[in-house]
Amino acid sequence: MATIRITATPGTPFLELEREFDAPRELVYRAWTDPKLIVRWLGPRRLQMRIDYWELDEHGGAYRYVHSGEDGVEHAFHGSFHRTGADPYTLLQTFEYEGAPGYVSLDELKLVEAGDRTIAKLRSVHQTVEARDAMLAAGASEGMNDGFERLDELLAGELASSS
Amino acid sequence: MATIRITATPGTPFLELEREFDAPRELVYRAWTDPKLIVRWLGPRRLQMRIDYWELDEHGGAYRYVHSGEDGVEHAFHGSFHRTGADPYTLLQTFEYEGAPGYVSLDELKLVEAGDRTIAKLRSVHQTVEARDAMLAAGASEGMNDGFERLDELLAGELASSS
Repeated sequence: MATIRITATPGTPFLELEREFDAPRELVYRAWTDPKLIVRWLGPRRLQMRIDYWELDEHGGAYRYVHSGEDGVEHAFHGSFHRTGADPYTLLQTFEYEGAPGYVSLDELKLVEAGDRTIAKLRSVHQTVEARDAMLAAGASEGMNDGFERLDELLAGELASSS
Repeated sequence: MATIRITATPGTPFLELEREFDAPRELVYRAWTDPKLIVRWLGPRRLQMRIDYWELDEHGGAYRYVHSGEDGVEHAFHGSFHRTGADPYTLLQTFEYEGAPGYVSLDELKLVEAGDRTIAKLRSVHQTVEARDAMLAAGASEGMNDGFERLDELLAGELASSS
């Protein structure tokens, strides 16, 4: 099982994660940007995900999605996509958890080829060091682990055979 | 003449600016968000500004504008607006100078009432400390000084009599 490498230097607002996937970059990028695929892996297994809106257009666009558990409690997230011309395998977006309004991060995903595999490099910058620390303390990486394993399964199964 | 207070703590990716305006918050907010008004003050006097697109919608939206001088050289900037529910006088947007693609900041504008006057608080966070330092070194505040004086004039003139 691939592990997540986390870098969170104390006293900075940065949070970096790296995770390798056993699939070509094209496929990983599709799974990360197509709302029909995103809902099948993003977040912990115990939560359902639905997309409120997910619009990636030539100028950027915006998204909002909702996770809900068996208890019916909903957690919503929204943000905007920033158009980047530099690299087609880079996705840049703002991110806000609606349960903590006013705390916004700028999140970058870069997909780097490593032979037949792909390394996903995530780099978030928060508006303050305190907000970054709160994100870490809330255990953001726990849900990610689960989600990335679901993404492994999706990439190894249906997506692999469709490509 | 009002001065700009700049805070840029070494070793951090933050850049903070404060500037007071002799006008009510409502008016300052209009001048900052209406593209027809923005083009009349944003940037140095010696440059012309035109809007390519400026869409502020319920989900966020995106913008792009171009500054050009008498020499015909154009400088373009683009980004996305992040929808914030927290405070109607806060504007949050990503920002990228197309002359240095790949360097994106997350910029927050907060307008705070101070009697009949308004304090504009700008807080940018860059993706790296180096990118923040480069922005400072490029003299970003010089163009701002000029622009803010033009905004003073707009607020004292036509906008004051229209409110």
